[in-house]
Amino acid sequence: MSIIKLKNPAYIFESASAVGCEEHKGPLGDKFDFHDEKDKFGAKTWEMAEGELGRTALALALSKAKLRPDDIDVLFAGDLQNQCVASSGGLYSFKIPYVGLYGACSTLGEGLMSASLALSASEDLRRVAAVTTSHNCAAERQFRLPIEYGGQRPPSAQWTATAGGAFLLGRDGYAKIERVMPGTIIDGGIADANNMGAAMAPAAADTIVKYFRESGEHPDDFDAIITGDLAKEGSYLLETILEKNNIVLKNHYDCGMMIYDYKKQDVHSGGSGCGCSASVFSAHFLPLLRSGEFKRVLLIPTGALMSTGSIQQGNNILGIAPLVCVEGVK
Amino acid sequence: MSIIKLKNPAYIFESASAVGCEEHKGPLGDKFDFHDEKDKFGAKTWEMAEGELGRTALALALSKAKLRPDDIDVLFAGDLQNQCVASSGGLYSFKIPYVGLYGACSTLGEGLMSASLALSASEDLRRVAAVTTSHNCAAERQFRLPIEYGGQRPPSAQWTATAGGAFLLGRDGYAKIERVMPGTIIDGGIADANNMGAAMAPAAADTIVKYFRESGEHPDDFDAIITGDLAKEGSYLLETILEKNNIVLKNHYDCGMMIYDYKKQDVHSGGSGCGCSASVFSAHFLPLLRSGEFKRVLLIPTGALMSTGSIQQGNNILGIAPLVCVEGVK
Repeated sequence: MSIIKLKNPAYIFESASAVGCEEHKGPLGDKFDFHDEKDKFGAKTWEMAEGELGRTALALALSKAKLRPDDIDVLFAGDLQNQCVASSGGLYSFKIPYVGLYGACSTLGEGLMSASLALSASEDLRRVAAVTTSHNCAAERQFRLPIEYGGQRPPSAQWTATAGGAFLLGRDGYAKIERVMPGTIIDGGIADANNMGAAMAPAAADTIVKYFRESGEHPDDFDAIITGDLAKEGSYLLETILEKNNIVLKNHYDCGMMIYDYKKQDVHSGGSGCGCSASVFSAHFLPLLRSGEFKRVLLIPTGALMSTGSIQQGNNILGIAPLVCVEGVK
Repeated sequence: MSIIKLKNPAYIFESASAVGCEEHKGPLGDKFDFHDEKDKFGAKTWEMAEGELGRTALALALSKAKLRPDDIDVLFAGDLQNQCVASSGGLYSFKIPYVGLYGACSTLGEGLMSASLALSASEDLRRVAAVTTSHNCAAERQFRLPIEYGGQRPPSAQWTATAGGAFLLGRDGYAKIERVMPGTIIDGGIADANNMGAAMAPAAADTIVKYFRESGEHPDDFDAIITGDLAKEGSYLLETILEKNNIVLKNHYDCGMMIYDYKKQDVHSGGSGCGCSASVFSAHFLPLLRSGEFKRVLLIPTGALMSTGSIQQGNNILGIAPLVCVEGVK
């Protein structure tokens, strides 16, 4: 069995999102809790700006819940920067016991899963948090340097979102997490860093096929099946692979296709990054679960496991897609 | 409360270690399950060699336990390479559902903690695994490039161990984990990447002081209080900080000081890396718990949260030190 049923369910009771300028211009722009027109979040460097973005998201979530940092017992966090320094550098000032995660753009799934497992594992924990971020300029400098070289972006390339989300989980809340499923790493044979969607789609398909086979459920049992950042290219591939497995998704949403108007904004195939699914899930999907409009969703953030070094050494980009089943309590 | 008591304890039932040439020459050399004189582990690059090292450790642990990869339900893993590609690239072929961790050199603590939390959280999980690795040459290329520059290593510098460990946990075994404690990130004001011990010592002290204050226990209640890789410099600082808090450790062992003969081997202050504590804990300490010679140990791997970019931008190196209490079952 790949699906893990928790002995004690966890509940999301609050969340917050923060984004940059381009994300605020997108179709969900007004839904985000905070945006910075300059993408700097008051910091000196793009890398530190990502840390500030995460700090802002967590501070906002705590403020909305009228809680202080020491009301949170453990913080699960991760990002795309080398050695995840955006998360550690941005969040250490809260002094919340910290568990660092790395699942590339799938880190939101890992974070909600790890947070829920921890709550189920021990009654000592009252509340925990999960935070993930990404920043376009920090990612460009790290993964696409030298930017001055002016490499052309093909249509399959994605735009790393300047975005982040913070999620507070505890013993009560409006959205229940009782079933989670870690992803299995899949090598889809893709070595092109400008085609992450194709590298991640087989992993998302693997997770979805396993979930429905093991659970006996049907895609129509859910209001939304939400992938993280497959974007246009990857979403098409996912739906194609699933159809070959006799699974037709009528209610598939991809956060990478939702965060930008990819026909008008110059983002090629769509958005990506740890913060893409985190900000869209917090700003768009959780309110639908809170209001009762949605009853059940499957959240399947997708990650491309690679580094500039692994690409230069000719390795394939490995995909992973953890799953979290989130159910409205109303 | 920072200490997390698990509802259902987890048990380590098997482990394995693999190391490189220099580690095999050290005082624990004969205890490691596997070593490669050439540090290449059959791979083409140092980076891929680290992946192979991790793969070897997990394969050996499975073999010793007479288990197959599909007997393990979740794998928790991490390393020091950018985007943790040694773990994902080295371990994906097992096809075990995967959770990527990043806690720098403290990742063993995070791994054993996360594995134990997961087992406690759900009866669906039969067995889980934790793997961490490091490779001297991969770390040198990533963190100390250009090596040809020939920067002098000061006496406080540490030597990243070419080493790794794999740990199998389940419902029965010879070493029980019932209490864990995630570390709190501490800024000790150190920005010198050649003095990681000083950056990590305040975090280790923070964890140890909190543990004894909250638990009401005493250091003498343990056969060993094991830090990960503070090495000579950091161990001295830790003991000094603890003495100011009226805690005297008579039974402090640091894996970074044990893996090499730092007076004879050219490793300056001692060993470091995710694989240092993993290999020493597997090869030296777990057998003492298995035989009954040791009853209880505190394992406190230590991590320095930084990247080459964060150092270049003048940020401090943040320390973290998760704690796992491991008790012999005999």
